[in-house]
Amino acid sequence: MGHVVFIGAGPGAADLITLRGAARLAQADVVLYDALTDPALRKLAPKARWLHVGKRGFCDSTAQTTINALMVKHALEVDVVVRLKGGDPSVFGRLEEELDALTRAGIACEVVPGVTAAIAAAADTQRPLTRRGTLGPAGRSVSLTTAVTRNGALPALRHADTEVFYMAGKQLGALSRRLRSAGWSNDTPASVVSRAGCSDMRYSDHTLLTLAQASMLHAGRPTVVTVGAGACALTTHAQSHTTDNLASPMETLKS
Amino acid sequence: MGHVVFIGAGPGAADLITLRGAARLAQADVVLYDALTDPALRKLAPKARWLHVGKRGFCDSTAQTTINALMVKHALEVDVVVRLKGGDPSVFGRLEEELDALTRAGIACEVVPGVTAAIAAAADTQRPLTRRGTLGPAGRSVSLTTAVTRNGALPALRHADTEVFYMAGKQLGALSRRLRSAGWSNDTPASVVSRAGCSDMRYSDHTLLTLAQASMLHAGRPTVVTVGAGACALTTHAQSHTTDNLASPMETLKS
Repeated sequence: MGHVVFIGAGPGAADLITLRGAARLAQADVVLYDALTDPALRKLAPKARWLHVGKRGFCDSTAQTTINALMVKHALEVDVVVRLKGGDPSVFGRLEEELDALTRAGIACEVVPGVTAAIAAAADTQRPLTRRGTLGPAGRSVSLTTAVTRNGALPALRHADTEVFYMAGKQLGALSRRLRSAGWSNDTPASVVSRAGCSDMRYSDHTLLTLAQASMLHAGRPTVVTVGAGACALTTHAQSHTTDNLASPMETLKS
Repeated sequence: MGHVVFIGAGPGAADLITLRGAARLAQADVVLYDALTDPALRKLAPKARWLHVGKRGFCDSTAQTTINALMVKHALEVDVVVRLKGGDPSVFGRLEEELDALTRAGIACEVVPGVTAAIAAAADTQRPLTRRGTLGPAGRSVSLTTAVTRNGALPALRHADTEVFYMAGKQLGALSRRLRSAGWSNDTPASVVSRAGCSDMRYSDHTLLTLAQASMLHAGRPTVVTVGAGACALTTHAQSHTTDNLASPMETLKS
Protein backbone atom coordinates (compact mmCIF):
# COMPACT_ATOMS: atom_id res chain seq x y z
CA MET A 1 0.00 0.00 0.00
CA GLY A 2 1.26 3.46 -0.90
CA HIS A 3 0.87 6.76 0.85
CA VAL A 4 -0.46 10.18 -0.07
CA VAL A 5 1.51 13.42 0.09
CA PHE A 6 -0.52 16.62 0.12
CA ILE A 7 1.61 19.41 -1.30
CA GLY A 8 0.87 23.11 -1.27
CA ALA A 9 1.95 24.26 -4.72
CA GLY A 10 1.75 27.94 -3.80
CA PRO A 11 -0.57 30.51 -5.33
CA GLY A 12 0.12 29.85 -9.00
CA ALA A 13 3.69 30.30 -10.19
CA ALA A 14 5.57 27.00 -10.29
CA ASP A 15 8.63 28.44 -8.53
CA LEU A 16 6.67 29.22 -5.39
CA ILE A 17 6.52 25.56 -4.42
CA THR A 18 8.95 24.62 -1.62
CA LEU A 19 12.07 22.55 -2.12
CA ARG A 20 10.42 19.82 -0.04
CA GLY A 21 7.34 19.94 -2.22
CA ALA A 22 9.46 19.67 -5.36
CA ALA A 23 11.41 16.73 -3.90
CA ARG A 24 8.24 14.83 -3.01
CA LEU A 25 6.75 15.59 -6.40
CA ALA A 26 9.81 14.05 -8.07
CA GLN A 27 8.99 10.77 -6.28
CA ALA A 28 5.35 10.71 -7.32
CA ASP A 29 3.81 7.89 -9.31
CA VAL A 30 0.46 9.64 -9.61
CA VAL A 31 -0.35 13.34 -9.19
CA LEU A 32 -3.92 14.48 -8.56
CA TYR A 33 -3.89 18.21 -9.20
CA ASP A 34 -6.19 21.19 -8.87
CA ALA A 35 -7.15 23.74 -11.48
CA LEU A 36 -5.07 26.45 -9.87
CA THR A 37 -1.70 24.73 -10.03
CA ASP A 38 0.83 25.82 -12.65
CA PRO A 39 1.25 23.41 -15.62
CA ALA A 40 5.00 24.10 -15.43
CA LEU A 41 5.05 21.95 -12.28
CA ARG A 42 4.81 18.89 -14.53
CA LYS A 43 8.50 19.24 -15.25
CA LEU A 44 9.13 18.32 -11.61
CA ALA A 45 7.48 14.92 -12.07
CA PRO A 46 7.64 14.08 -15.78
CA LYS A 47 7.16 10.34 -15.35
CA ALA A 48 4.15 10.52 -13.05
CA ARG A 49 0.56 10.14 -14.24
CA TRP A 50 -1.03 13.58 -13.92
CA LEU A 51 -4.78 13.57 -13.27
CA HIS A 52 -6.82 16.75 -13.17
CA VAL A 53 -9.36 16.63 -10.34
CA GLY A 54 -9.86 20.23 -9.34
CA LYS A 55 -12.17 22.97 -10.31
CA ARG A 56 -12.51 26.57 -9.35
CA GLY A 57 -14.65 27.86 -6.51
CA PHE A 58 -16.72 25.74 -4.19
CA CYS A 59 -16.76 22.02 -4.65
CA ASP A 60 -19.96 20.04 -4.34
CA SER A 61 -20.03 16.87 -2.30
CA THR A 62 -20.09 14.50 -5.28
CA ALA A 63 -16.92 15.92 -6.73
CA GLN A 64 -15.24 15.82 -3.33
CA THR A 65 -16.16 12.18 -2.72
CA THR A 66 -14.85 11.33 -6.20
CA ILE A 67 -11.52 12.98 -5.38
CA ASN A 68 -11.40 11.07 -2.09
CA ALA A 69 -12.10 7.82 -3.91
CA LEU A 70 -9.44 8.47 -6.53
CA MET A 71 -6.81 9.11 -3.85
CA VAL A 72 -7.68 5.85 -2.11
CA LYS A 73 -7.76 3.89 -5.37
CA HIS A 74 -4.34 5.07 -6.50
CA ALA A 75 -2.75 4.74 -3.07
CA LEU A 76 -3.74 1.05 -3.18
CA GLU A 77 -2.02 0.65 -6.56
CA VAL A 78 1.20 2.69 -6.42
CA ASP A 79 3.78 3.84 -3.87
CA VAL A 80 3.51 7.62 -3.89
CA VAL A 81 0.37 9.57 -4.68
CA VAL A 82 0.73 13.35 -4.62
CA ARG A 83 -2.33 15.48 -4.01
CA LEU A 84 -1.19 18.83 -5.40
CA LYS A 85 -3.20 21.81 -4.22
CA GLY A 86 -3.05 25.47 -5.08
CA GLY A 87 -1.81 27.66 -2.22
CA ASP A 88 -1.55 25.77 1.05
CA PRO A 89 -3.59 22.63 1.84
CA SER A 90 -4.52 23.78 5.36
CA VAL A 91 -6.04 27.10 4.25
CA PHE A 92 -9.32 26.77 2.32
CA GLY A 93 -8.05 23.54 0.79
CA ARG A 94 -10.74 21.03 1.87
CA LEU A 95 -7.92 19.10 3.53
CA GLU A 96 -10.15 17.88 6.34
CA GLU A 97 -12.40 15.79 4.07
CA GLU A 98 -9.49 14.32 2.14
CA LEU A 99 -7.42 13.41 5.21
CA ASP A 100 -10.49 11.88 6.77
CA ALA A 101 -11.16 9.66 3.75
CA LEU A 102 -7.56 8.44 3.70
CA THR A 103 -7.47 7.83 7.44
CA ARG A 104 -10.63 5.77 7.22
CA ALA A 105 -8.99 3.69 4.49
CA GLY A 106 -5.86 3.17 6.62
CA ILE A 107 -3.62 5.11 4.25
CA ALA A 108 -0.70 7.13 5.64
CA CYS A 109 -0.45 10.80 4.74
CA GLU A 110 2.06 13.62 4.82
CA VAL A 111 1.28 17.30 4.40
CA VAL A 112 3.88 19.63 2.88
CA PRO A 113 2.94 23.26 3.51
CA GLY A 114 2.84 25.95 0.84
CA VAL A 115 2.64 29.70 0.33
CA THR A 116 -0.94 30.86 0.68
CA ALA A 117 -2.37 33.56 -1.61
CA ALA A 118 -2.70 36.25 1.08
CA ILE A 119 1.02 36.05 1.77
CA ALA A 120 1.96 36.03 -1.91
CA ALA A 121 -0.24 39.09 -2.49
CA ALA A 122 1.46 40.91 0.38
CA ALA A 123 4.87 40.08 -1.10
CA ASP A 124 3.88 41.27 -4.59
CA THR A 125 2.49 44.57 -3.35
CA GLN A 126 5.13 45.00 -0.63
CA ARG A 127 2.42 45.57 1.93
CA PRO A 128 3.08 43.62 5.12
CA LEU A 129 0.03 41.90 6.56
CA THR A 130 1.17 42.70 10.10
CA ARG A 131 2.81 45.95 11.17
CA ARG A 132 4.16 47.09 14.48
CA GLY A 133 2.65 50.52 14.08
CA THR A 134 5.89 52.48 14.23
CA LEU A 135 5.36 54.02 10.77
CA GLY A 136 1.59 53.94 10.22
CA PRO A 137 -1.52 52.11 11.32
CA ALA A 138 -0.72 49.09 13.49
CA GLY A 139 -1.59 45.66 12.16
CA ARG A 140 -1.17 43.30 15.09
CA SER A 141 -3.27 40.51 13.65
CA VAL A 142 -4.32 39.21 10.27
CA SER A 143 -7.40 37.16 9.53
CA LEU A 144 -7.92 34.95 6.48
CA THR A 145 -11.50 34.20 5.51
CA THR A 146 -13.65 33.56 2.47
CA ALA A 147 -15.78 36.24 0.87
CA VAL A 148 -18.73 33.84 0.93
CA THR A 149 -19.38 30.64 2.85
CA ARG A 150 -20.26 27.26 1.39
CA ASN A 151 -23.95 28.13 1.62
CA GLY A 152 -23.48 31.38 -0.24
CA ALA A 153 -23.83 33.54 2.85
CA LEU A 154 -21.38 36.31 3.55
CA PRO A 155 -19.30 35.63 6.64
CA ALA A 156 -19.76 37.27 10.00
CA LEU A 157 -17.52 40.26 10.39
CA ARG A 158 -14.09 39.61 11.85
CA HIS A 159 -12.04 41.97 13.91
CA ALA A 160 -8.41 41.52 12.95
CA ASP A 161 -6.50 44.65 11.97
CA THR A 162 -5.92 43.20 8.51
CA GLU A 163 -8.59 41.05 6.86
CA VAL A 164 -7.87 39.03 3.73
CA PHE A 165 -10.81 37.61 1.80
CA TYR A 166 -10.25 34.61 -0.47
CA MET A 167 -12.38 33.64 -3.47
CA ALA A 168 -13.57 37.22 -3.60
CA GLY A 169 -13.49 37.93 -7.34
CA LYS A 170 -17.21 37.64 -8.00
CA GLN A 171 -18.25 39.10 -4.66
CA LEU A 172 -16.60 42.52 -4.60
CA GLY A 173 -19.83 44.53 -4.56
CA ALA A 174 -21.45 42.29 -1.97
CA LEU A 175 -18.32 42.29 0.18
CA SER A 176 -18.16 46.08 0.06
CA ARG A 177 -21.79 46.41 1.15
CA ARG A 178 -21.46 43.79 3.87
CA LEU A 179 -18.40 45.30 5.49
CA ARG A 180 -19.76 48.84 5.32
CA SER A 181 -23.10 47.82 6.77
CA ALA A 182 -21.16 46.13 9.58
CA GLY A 183 -19.56 49.43 10.49
CA TRP A 184 -16.32 49.68 8.52
CA SER A 185 -15.95 53.22 7.19
CA ASN A 186 -16.33 53.92 3.48
CA ASP A 187 -12.70 55.05 3.18
CA THR A 188 -11.14 51.89 4.68
CA PRO A 189 -8.32 50.91 2.30
CA ALA A 190 -8.88 47.78 0.23
CA SER A 191 -6.22 46.27 -2.02
CA VAL A 192 -7.20 43.73 -4.69
CA VAL A 193 -4.64 41.27 -6.09
CA SER A 194 -5.25 38.61 -8.70
CA ARG A 195 -2.85 35.85 -9.78
CA ALA A 196 -0.59 36.69 -6.82
CA GLY A 197 2.96 35.46 -7.25
CA CYS A 198 2.64 35.11 -11.04
CA SER A 199 4.25 37.19 -13.77
CA ASP A 200 0.82 38.41 -14.87
CA MET A 201 -0.18 39.47 -11.34
CA ARG A 202 -2.51 42.48 -11.22
CA TYR A 203 -3.35 44.73 -8.31
CA SER A 204 -5.51 47.75 -7.74
CA ASP A 205 -6.15 50.08 -4.82
CA HIS A 206 -9.59 51.03 -3.61
CA THR A 207 -11.58 51.98 -0.59
CA LEU A 208 -14.46 49.88 0.67
CA LEU A 209 -16.81 52.33 -1.08
CA THR A 210 -15.17 51.84 -4.49
CA LEU A 211 -14.23 48.17 -4.17
CA ALA A 212 -16.71 46.98 -6.81
CA GLN A 213 -14.82 48.97 -9.43
CA ALA A 214 -12.08 46.33 -9.27
CA SER A 215 -14.34 43.68 -10.82
CA MET A 216 -13.40 44.21 -14.44
CA LEU A 217 -9.62 44.30 -13.97
CA HIS A 218 -9.59 41.01 -12.07
CA ALA A 219 -12.47 39.20 -13.80
CA GLY A 220 -12.01 35.44 -14.11
CA ARG A 221 -8.76 35.41 -12.14
CA PRO A 222 -8.10 34.01 -8.65
CA THR A 223 -8.39 37.07 -6.44
CA VAL A 224 -7.75 38.06 -2.83
CA VAL A 225 -8.94 41.27 -1.22
CA THR A 226 -6.94 42.76 1.65
CA VAL A 227 -8.79 45.23 3.85
CA GLY A 228 -7.48 47.42 6.67
CA ALA A 229 -3.92 48.03 7.85
CA GLY A 230 -2.36 45.52 5.46
CA ALA A 231 -3.92 47.26 2.45
CA CYS A 232 -2.03 50.52 2.99
CA ALA A 233 0.89 51.31 0.71
CA LEU A 234 3.99 52.08 2.73
CA THR A 235 4.64 55.30 0.83
CA THR A 236 1.36 56.58 2.23
CA HIS A 237 2.77 56.07 5.69
CA ALA A 238 6.00 57.83 4.86
CA GLN A 239 4.11 60.81 3.47
CA SER A 240 1.88 61.09 6.48
CA HIS A 241 4.78 61.22 8.92
CA THR A 242 7.48 63.73 9.56
CA THR A 243 10.97 62.30 9.34
CA ASP A 244 12.24 64.35 12.27
CA ASN A 245 12.44 61.49 14.72
CA LEU A 246 13.64 58.83 12.28
CA ALA A 247 17.41 58.46 12.22
CA SER A 248 19.05 58.14 8.82
CA PRO A 249 20.16 54.53 8.31
CA MET A 250 23.64 55.59 7.22
CA GLU A 251 24.04 57.90 10.19
CA THR A 252 23.00 55.12 12.54
CA LEU A 253 25.65 52.79 11.22
CA LYS A 254 28.38 55.39 11.47
CA SER A 255 27.53 56.39 15.00
CA MET B 1 23.56 50.43 -6.86
CA GLY B 2 22.29 46.99 -5.94
CA HIS B 3 18.89 45.85 -4.77
CA VAL B 4 17.56 43.96 -1.78
CA VAL B 5 15.57 40.72 -1.94
CA PHE B 6 13.57 39.84 1.15
CA ILE B 7 13.14 36.08 1.26
CA GLY B 8 10.88 34.09 3.55
CA ALA B 9 13.01 31.10 4.51
CA GLY B 10 10.09 29.20 6.01
CA PRO B 11 9.70 28.18 9.62
CA GLY B 12 13.06 26.52 10.16
CA ALA B 13 13.90 23.55 7.95
CA ALA B 14 16.00 24.57 4.95
CA ASP B 15 13.84 22.63 2.48
CA LEU B 16 10.78 24.71 3.25
CA ILE B 17 12.18 27.68 1.30
CA THR B 18 10.57 28.14 -2.12
CA LEU B 19 12.32 27.41 -5.40
CA ARG B 20 12.21 31.15 -6.11
CA GLY B 21 13.77 31.91 -2.76
CA ALA B 22 16.52 29.37 -3.41
CA ALA B 23 17.18 30.82 -6.87
CA ARG B 24 17.47 34.37 -5.53
CA LEU B 25 19.70 33.18 -2.71
CA ALA B 26 22.06 31.62 -5.25
CA GLN B 27 22.55 35.08 -6.79
CA ALA B 28 23.27 36.82 -3.47
CA ASP B 29 26.49 38.67 -2.79
CA VAL B 30 25.58 39.37 0.83
CA VAL B 31 23.00 37.60 3.01
CA LEU B 32 21.69 39.26 6.18
CA TYR B 33 19.99 36.48 8.11
CA ASP B 34 17.86 36.03 11.18
CA ALA B 35 18.41 33.72 14.14
CA LEU B 36 15.57 31.44 13.09
CA THR B 37 16.86 30.50 9.65
CA ASP B 38 18.40 27.06 9.10
CA PRO B 39 22.24 27.05 8.79
CA ALA B 40 21.82 24.45 6.01
CA LEU B 41 20.57 27.29 3.81
CA ARG B 42 24.18 28.41 3.44
CA LYS B 43 24.70 25.67 0.89
CA LEU B 44 22.34 27.57 -1.40
CA ALA B 45 24.66 30.60 -1.45
CA PRO B 46 28.15 29.33 -0.58
CA LYS B 47 30.02 32.29 -2.08
CA ALA B 48 27.95 35.02 -0.45
CA ARG B 49 28.98 36.83 2.72
CA TRP B 50 26.63 35.67 5.47
CA LEU B 51 26.00 38.19 8.23
CA HIS B 52 23.94 37.36 11.28
CA VAL B 53 21.64 40.24 12.21
CA GLY B 54 18.68 38.61 13.88
CA LYS B 55 17.71 37.74 17.34
CA ARG B 56 14.80 36.00 18.94
CA GLY B 57 11.69 37.74 20.14
CA PHE B 58 10.99 41.43 19.99
CA CYS B 59 13.62 43.68 18.52
CA ASP B 60 14.46 47.01 20.09
CA SER B 61 14.66 50.08 17.90
CA THR B 62 18.45 50.31 17.98
CA ALA B 63 18.89 46.83 16.60
CA GLN B 64 16.27 47.48 13.92
CA THR B 65 17.94 50.70 12.76
CA THR B 66 21.26 48.88 12.63
CA ILE B 67 19.76 46.21 10.38
CA ASN B 68 18.25 48.93 8.18
CA ALA B 69 21.62 50.64 7.93
CA LEU B 70 23.43 47.41 7.08
CA MET B 71 20.99 46.68 4.25
CA VAL B 72 21.52 50.15 2.80
CA LYS B 73 25.29 49.98 3.20
CA HIS B 74 25.62 46.65 1.42
CA ALA B 75 23.12 47.53 -1.31
CA LEU B 76 25.37 50.49 -2.18
CA GLU B 77 28.39 48.17 -2.46
CA VAL B 78 27.18 44.97 -4.17
CA ASP B 79 24.54 43.88 -6.68
CA VAL B 80 22.30 41.53 -4.71
CA VAL B 81 21.66 41.74 -0.99
CA VAL B 82 19.37 39.07 0.43
CA ARG B 83 17.50 39.75 3.65
CA LEU B 84 16.67 36.23 4.79
CA LYS B 85 13.87 35.99 7.33
CA GLY B 86 12.39 33.09 9.24
CA GLY B 87 8.86 32.24 8.16
CA ASP B 88 7.35 34.84 5.83
CA PRO B 89 8.51 38.47 5.74
CA SER B 90 4.95 39.89 5.68
CA VAL B 91 3.82 38.09 8.83
CA PHE B 92 5.44 39.37 12.05
CA GLY B 93 8.65 40.03 10.11
CA ARG B 94 9.17 43.76 10.72
CA LEU B 95 9.10 44.15 6.94
CA GLU B 96 7.48 47.57 7.13
CA GLU B 97 10.44 49.25 8.84
CA GLU B 98 12.99 47.60 6.55
CA LEU B 99 11.14 48.38 3.30
CA ASP B 100 10.68 51.94 4.48
CA ALA B 101 14.40 52.40 5.15
CA LEU B 102 15.31 51.07 1.71
CA THR B 103 12.66 53.13 -0.06
CA ARG B 104 13.96 56.27 1.63
CA ALA B 105 17.45 55.40 0.38
CA GLY B 106 16.14 54.87 -3.17
CA ILE B 107 16.99 51.17 -3.20
CA ALA B 108 14.78 48.76 -5.14
CA CYS B 109 13.32 45.75 -3.32
CA GLU B 110 11.68 42.44 -4.07
CA VAL B 111 9.80 40.28 -1.59
CA VAL B 112 9.73 36.49 -2.04
CA PRO B 113 7.03 34.95 0.15
CA GLY B 114 7.57 32.02 2.48
CA VAL B 115 5.75 29.43 4.55
CA THR B 116 4.65 30.95 7.83
CA ALA B 117 4.83 28.97 11.09
CA ALA B 118 1.05 28.62 11.56
CA ILE B 119 0.76 26.86 8.23
CA ALA B 120 3.76 24.61 8.85
CA ALA B 121 2.33 23.65 12.24
CA ALA B 122 -1.00 22.75 10.63
CA ALA B 123 0.81 20.58 8.07
CA ASP B 124 2.87 18.79 10.73
CA THR B 125 -0.12 18.01 12.90
CA GLN B 126 -2.48 17.40 9.95
CA ARG B 127 -4.98 19.84 11.42
CA PRO B 128 -6.36 22.19 8.78
CA LEU B 129 -6.60 25.80 9.90
CA THR B 130 -9.88 26.21 8.03
CA ARG B 131 -12.61 23.58 7.80
CA ARG B 132 -15.90 23.55 6.00
CA GLY B 133 -17.65 22.00 8.96
CA THR B 134 -18.82 18.84 7.21
CA LEU B 135 -16.97 16.56 9.66
CA GLY B 136 -16.65 18.59 12.84
CA PRO B 137 -16.54 22.17 14.06
CA ALA B 138 -16.48 24.68 11.20
CA GLY B 139 -13.41 26.86 10.84
CA ARG B 140 -14.33 29.51 8.31
CA SER B 141 -11.60 31.92 9.25
CA VAL B 142 -8.14 31.85 10.76
CA SER B 143 -6.45 34.70 12.58
CA LEU B 144 -2.71 35.05 13.14
CA THR B 145 -1.62 37.22 16.03
CA THR B 146 1.13 37.53 18.62
CA ALA B 147 0.75 36.28 22.15
CA VAL B 148 2.03 39.61 23.41
CA THR B 149 2.36 42.99 21.74
CA ARG B 150 5.51 45.07 21.47
CA ASN B 151 4.69 46.80 24.74
CA GLY B 152 4.27 43.52 26.57
CA ALA B 153 0.49 43.73 26.68
CA LEU B 154 -1.64 40.78 25.72
CA PRO B 155 -3.64 41.41 22.56
CA ALA B 156 -7.33 42.17 22.41
CA LEU B 157 -9.32 39.03 21.83
CA ARG B 158 -10.00 38.12 18.22
CA HIS B 159 -12.99 36.29 16.89
CA ALA B 160 -11.83 34.00 14.12
CA ASP B 161 -12.83 30.34 14.38
CA THR B 162 -9.15 29.36 14.55
CA GLU B 163 -6.65 31.60 16.33
CA VAL B 164 -2.92 31.07 16.00
CA PHE B 165 -0.64 32.86 18.43
CA TYR B 166 2.99 33.47 17.46
CA MET B 167 5.90 33.98 19.86
CA ALA B 168 3.85 32.28 22.53
CA GLY B 169 6.42 30.04 24.18
CA LYS B 170 6.98 32.12 27.31
CA GLN B 171 3.39 33.31 27.55
CA LEU B 172 1.38 30.11 27.77
CA GLY B 173 0.03 30.70 31.26
CA ALA B 174 -0.78 34.33 30.58
CA LEU B 175 -2.39 33.48 27.26
CA SER B 176 -4.54 30.82 28.90
CA ARG B 177 -5.75 33.26 31.56
CA ARG B 178 -6.37 36.05 29.07
CA LEU B 179 -8.45 33.98 26.69
CA ARG B 180 -10.49 32.37 29.47
CA SER B 181 -11.16 35.68 31.15
CA ALA B 182 -12.35 36.96 27.76
CA GLY B 183 -14.96 34.24 27.63
CA TRP B 184 -13.41 31.25 25.90
CA SER B 185 -14.44 28.09 27.72
CA ASN B 186 -11.89 26.13 29.74
CA ASP B 187 -12.19 23.12 27.46
CA THR B 188 -11.45 24.96 24.20
CA PRO B 189 -8.85 22.83 22.36
CA ALA B 190 -5.34 24.29 22.16
CA SER B 191 -2.54 22.67 20.18
CA VAL B 192 1.08 23.69 20.81
CA VAL B 193 3.75 23.15 18.15
CA SER B 194 7.41 24.08 18.41
CA ARG B 195 10.01 23.95 15.62
CA ALA B 196 7.23 23.44 13.07
CA GLY B 197 8.43 21.94 9.81
CA CYS B 198 11.67 20.61 11.34
CA SER B 199 12.68 17.02 12.02
CA ASP B 200 12.71 17.74 15.76
CA MET B 201 9.21 19.26 15.74
CA ARG B 202 7.23 18.71 18.94
CA TYR B 203 3.53 19.07 19.54
CA SER B 204 1.21 18.63 22.44
CA ASP B 205 -2.55 18.82 22.93
CA HIS B 206 -4.23 20.79 25.68
CA THR B 207 -7.29 22.75 26.56
CA LEU B 208 -7.16 26.40 27.46
CA LEU B 209 -7.30 25.37 31.10
CA THR B 210 -4.21 23.15 30.86
CA LEU B 211 -2.25 25.17 28.30
CA ALA B 212 0.49 26.20 30.74
CA GLN B 213 1.47 22.55 31.11
CA ALA B 214 3.03 22.74 27.64
CA SER B 215 5.75 25.13 28.82
CA MET B 216 8.38 22.54 29.69
CA LEU B 217 8.09 20.47 26.50
CA HIS B 218 8.51 23.51 24.26
CA ALA B 219 10.88 25.61 26.41
CA GLY B 220 13.38 27.67 24.43
CA ARG B 221 11.94 26.68 21.06
CA PRO B 222 10.00 28.81 18.55
CA THR B 223 6.39 27.99 19.37
CA VAL B 224 2.93 28.63 17.95
CA VAL B 225 -0.32 27.95 19.77
CA THR B 226 -3.42 27.10 17.76
CA VAL B 227 -6.74 27.58 19.55
CA GLY B 228 -10.25 26.66 18.44
CA ALA B 229 -11.43 24.69 15.42
CA GLY B 230 -7.96 24.31 13.91
CA ALA B 231 -6.62 22.71 17.11
CA CYS B 232 -8.93 19.67 16.89
CA ALA B 233 -7.46 16.38 15.77
CA LEU B 234 -9.42 14.95 12.85
CA THR B 235 -9.73 11.56 14.55
CA THR B 236 -11.74 13.29 17.24
CA HIS B 237 -14.20 14.34 14.58
CA ALA B 238 -14.42 10.89 13.14
CA GLN B 239 -15.08 9.41 16.57
CA SER B 240 -17.75 11.93 17.37
CA HIS B 241 -19.71 11.23 14.21
CA THR B 242 -21.60 8.24 12.99
CA THR B 243 -20.50 7.00 9.61
CA ASP B 244 -24.01 6.22 8.48
CA ASN B 245 -24.32 9.09 6.07
CA LEU B 246 -20.73 9.04 4.82
CA ALA B 247 -20.31 7.05 1.63
CA SER B 248 -17.29 4.76 1.44
CA PRO B 249 -14.76 6.24 -0.98
CA MET B 250 -14.39 2.96 -2.87
CA GLU B 251 -18.13 2.57 -3.21
CA THR B 252 -18.44 6.09 -4.55
CA LEU B 253 -15.89 5.43 -7.26
CA LYS B 254 -17.55 2.21 -8.33
CA SER B 255 -21.00 3.70 -8.52
